[in-house]
Amino acid sequence: MALTARQWGAEEIVYSGEKDSKMMESVRDIADRWGGEFKVSYRKDFGNVIKEFDGLKVHLTMYGEPIEEKIDDIDAEFDEDILVVVGAEKVPRKVYTNVDYNVGIGHQPHSEIAALAVFMDRFTDIKHDFEDADIEVVPSEDRKLTEDNRSRPE
Amino acid sequence: MALTARQWGAEEIVYSGEKDSKMMESVRDIADRWGGEFKVSYRKDFGNVIKEFDGLKVHLTMYGEPIEEKIDDIDAEFDEDILVVVGAEKVPRKVYTNVDYNVGIGHQPHSEIAALAVFMDRFTDIKHDFEDADIEVVPSEDRKLTEDNRSRPE
Repeated sequence: MALTARQWGAEEIVYSGEKDSKMMESVRDIADRWGGEFKVSYRKDFGNVIKEFDGLKVHLTMYGEPIEEKIDDIDAEFDEDILVVVGAEKVPRKVYTNVDYNVGIGHQPHSEIAALAVFMDRFTDIKHDFEDADIEVVPSEDRKLTEDNRSRPE
Repeated sequence: MALTARQWGAEEIVYSGEKDSKMMESVRDIADRWGGEFKVSYRKDFGNVIKEFDGLKVHLTMYGEPIEEKIDDIDAEFDEDILVVVGAEKVPRKVYTNVDYNVGIGHQPHSEIAALAVFMDRFTDIKHDFEDADIEVVPSEDRKLTEDNRSRPE
């Protein structure tokens, strides 16, 4: 979920539920090597994260209104910041009522990672340039190529 | 991965690696209740799955060519069937050389589920109508609503 958010240009992921320091370390390690300023943090009470957020709030849920019908409204209302809420398991009612949009990326049981990725892909572009990357892929037709920027001459 | 494939209209998912009968049962159970004809099967040797497949073969990998540059070619070459190959962990070289396209949904470390979802979303639409569904979501602004089709009068 964190890597998906990062790849489509999110600044930060905030998660609740069980704290997972190893996951956080792994995400920070990737962001460190692959560049950019992506942040990951834990908040016990996601209700407060939603309440405190100043900007457009969109909850992705298979029970929401179709993305096809809502993406233009969201685009039009988007000003500076957007909070995308993605739940696992049971999402309490207050999440549905404390956001601006409940949007379905389809209405079938599906992966929340898929929902986040497709929402972000329809809302914005894949982010390709991450600052200060130590390592970068060199896109290729048929093999794995990477470039280690640390070995570049200054 | 299976539910993502299903939601964007795939007919079937074939997986390799460790066999997981519980996962297969769970996917079949969902497909049964939510409709459609989605199939899930296990093949020990994915190399043969790729070789035997008659149609366009696309491998999603962060090392591949950018989706932004390749989607039109893929669309143009697409005839009847398409096999989308998604690897976890180390993907052997022969996968890269036995497909028609190696395509990167971005070139950053990311979730393979995100890659599959976004590839399919750019290639086709979210599938909304599944035949013979027992249960369906009634899209809503602010709550969870479902309809049980089995209780409908004939």
